[in-house]
Amino acid sequence: MPAQLIALDWGTSSLRAYKLGPGGLVLERRALASGIMHLPSEPRVIAGIRCTDGFELAFDAACGDWLDAQPGLPVIACGMVGSAQGWSEAAYRDTPADVATLGQALQVVRSLRGVDVHIVPGVIQRSSLPNVMRGEETQVLGVLQSLSAGLDSQLLIGLPGSHSKWVEVAGGCITHFDTFMTGELFAVLSEHSILGRTQQPSKHFQAAAFDRGVQVALSAAGQMGLLSTLFSARTLGLTGELAPDEQPDYLSGLLIGHELSGLRARWPDIVLVGNSQLCARYQRALELCGFPRVTLAQEATERGLWQLAVAAGLLPASVQPVLEA
Amino acid sequence: MPAQLIALDWGTSSLRAYKLGPGGLVLERRALASGIMHLPSEPRVIAGIRCTDGFELAFDAACGDWLDAQPGLPVIACGMVGSAQGWSEAAYRDTPADVATLGQALQVVRSLRGVDVHIVPGVIQRSSLPNVMRGEETQVLGVLQSLSAGLDSQLLIGLPGSHSKWVEVAGGCITHFDTFMTGELFAVLSEHSILGRTQQPSKHFQAAAFDRGVQVALSAAGQMGLLSTLFSARTLGLTGELAPDEQPDYLSGLLIGHELSGLRARWPDIVLVGNSQLCARYQRALELCGFPRVTLAQEATERGLWQLAVAAGLLPASVQPVLEA
Repeated sequence: MPAQLIALDWGTSSLRAYKLGPGGLVLERRALASGIMHLPSEPRVIAGIRCTDGFELAFDAACGDWLDAQPGLPVIACGMVGSAQGWSEAAYRDTPADVATLGQALQVVRSLRGVDVHIVPGVIQRSSLPNVMRGEETQVLGVLQSLSAGLDSQLLIGLPGSHSKWVEVAGGCITHFDTFMTGELFAVLSEHSILGRTQQPSKHFQAAAFDRGVQVALSAAGQMGLLSTLFSARTLGLTGELAPDEQPDYLSGLLIGHELSGLRARWPDIVLVGNSQLCARYQRALELCGFPRVTLAQEATERGLWQLAVAAGLLPASVQPVLEA
Repeated sequence: MPAQLIALDWGTSSLRAYKLGPGGLVLERRALASGIMHLPSEPRVIAGIRCTDGFELAFDAACGDWLDAQPGLPVIACGMVGSAQGWSEAAYRDTPADVATLGQALQVVRSLRGVDVHIVPGVIQRSSLPNVMRGEETQVLGVLQSLSAGLDSQLLIGLPGSHSKWVEVAGGCITHFDTFMTGELFAVLSEHSILGRTQQPSKHFQAAAFDRGVQVALSAAGQMGLLSTLFSARTLGLTGELAPDEQPDYLSGLLIGHELSGLRARWPDIVLVGNSQLCARYQRALELCGFPRVTLAQEATERGLWQLAVAAGLLPASVQPVLEA
C-alpha cells in the first residue's frame, strides 16, 4: 500500500517515525534515540553532499529510505524539534488553539534532499503564570479525533510524564492547560536527595505503598503541601512503617496524589495519554481520588499528526480526511 | 576564667565546640568540618593509645586541649552525633518534651581519654505522619531560656535549613513540630533539574524576584501546589519576565512561600533561629505573609546545651542555673 504521509514525533530524547497510509493508517513505525539533545554526529553523504548536520543525519536515518521510495511524500513533525534548540523554531501559538489554527501555522524547514519538513508549533497560555507545551498539543488533537462524537463536550486530557500536562478541551479546542513537574521531581529526589539514600528498587509494583502515598497527599497532612509530606518518605522508613523497597512507590504515589489534588475541578471525563505503565499509576490514583470515568487513549501522536497534515493541506484533496475510529 | 562545661553542636557536616564559663558564658568557640559524615581518618595517639576512630579523633581535635587543661570538665553534645550513624545512638524522646525530660535522657559514651560525653536525644512526634529532629530541640530550649518571661505563652519557633523545622511550644514544652524539605529541594532543583539549566548566579539578592516567588506561592495559582508553580520558574524565563540571574531567588521565594503557606496557623509571635542570611529571607517572606511579630534568636545552641547540662546535673550545684538574657 503506498504511503501518504511521513509523521515524526521528535522530542528531546527520542525520535519516532511513522509511515502513514490512507486515512492515517500506520504502515510502518520506527523508534530512534536521536532526540534533539542526542543527535548523531558521524558525517554521511546525503543527496550527494557530505553532511555533518545532526538534524539532517537523524532525519535521513529515520525516513531517508521511505523518501527514496516515494520522493513526493509530505513530512510533518511535532515536539521539541520546533523549539529554540530544535531544527527550526516554530513560534508558540496562543490558547485557545485547535487543529485549524495549529495546522495553518506549520513552520517549514527545507532538508538537504529538498524535502520540506513541516513543524507543528507548540502552544502557549499567557495566564498570570505562563504555560507552554510542545508535542502534547498534537497528542491532544489525536485524542479528540479518536472520540466518536465527543468534540462538543468538555473533557480533561492528562499527559503524565516528566512535566505532566492537564489539558482542558471544549468544542475541539484547547482552552486551558496546566503543567506539573511530577516526573522530574521524582527523578531528582530519588537520585540526588536524602530520600533516595534509603530507597531500594522493588521487583514488583508496591501497590499498598503507592496507595498510601496518594492518600497522604489527599489527607489533612497533605494540605500542608508537598514540602512537608515529602519528609514522611524518610520518617516512615525510620519508624519501620515503610520498607526500603516500598519507598520508591510511596514517593511516586505521594507526588502523583499532590498533582491530582491540584487539578482545578473534578471533571466527569478524563482521558490519559502516554506510557502505559505510567498511565496505569495515574488511573489507579485517579480512582482513589474519586474521578468516575478514566479512559486510555492509543496512537494519539500519529492521529494528531495526520489531522494536522490534513488541516494544513499537505495531503491530496482526495484523501479521506478522518481515520476510522 | 575557668570553664564549667564543654558543649558540642555536632551535626552531619560540621562540629562546633564551645567552652562555657559561669552562667553559660561563651569563653571560646571553634568550628571544625568534622561532621559525622566527614570525620577525620588519619590515626593519632590519644591518651597514649594509637587511635583510628573518627569520632575520637574529631572529639580530640575539637576539645582535647581544653580537657588537658581542665580534665574534670563535663561534656555535652547534641545533633546527628546521637543518630544511628553517630557516635552512640540516643533514642528519640516523644513529644511533649521539655528541658527536664530531655536533660534526664542523655546518652553517655565514654571517650578514649576516659571522659564521658553526654549526648542529647532527638525528639520524635508520633502523629499520623511521624516527624523527627536532632539538634533543633536543643536550639528551641535555648530560645526559650533567652525569653525573659515568655515560657507560658504560646510561641512558634522556625529553624530554616535543608529540612526546616517549625516547632510549637507552650509552657516551656515542645508540643508539636513540622518539617519542610525546602532547603534540600532548592539545592537539588538548582543542581539537577531543568530549572537549574537557565539559572545564573546573581551578584546580589534579587529582592523583587524573591518577593514575586513568595507571592505566587500565596496566590490562587499557588493553591494548585508546588508541582505546578515550579514550572513557572522556567516559563517566566521563556517569556522574558525573569532574567537568568533572577531565577535562583525567584525559586527560593517560591519554595519559602509554599513552606509558609503550609504552616498550621497564623501565630502572633515567631522566633527564627539559624543562619542569618537565610533567616533574613524568611523574615522578609513572613512579612509578606502578614505575620506580625518576627524576631531572631542568637546563640540558641550554646544556651540550650547549657540548660540541658544544668537539668542533667552535670554542673556543680553551686553553678548559677540561668544565663542572664
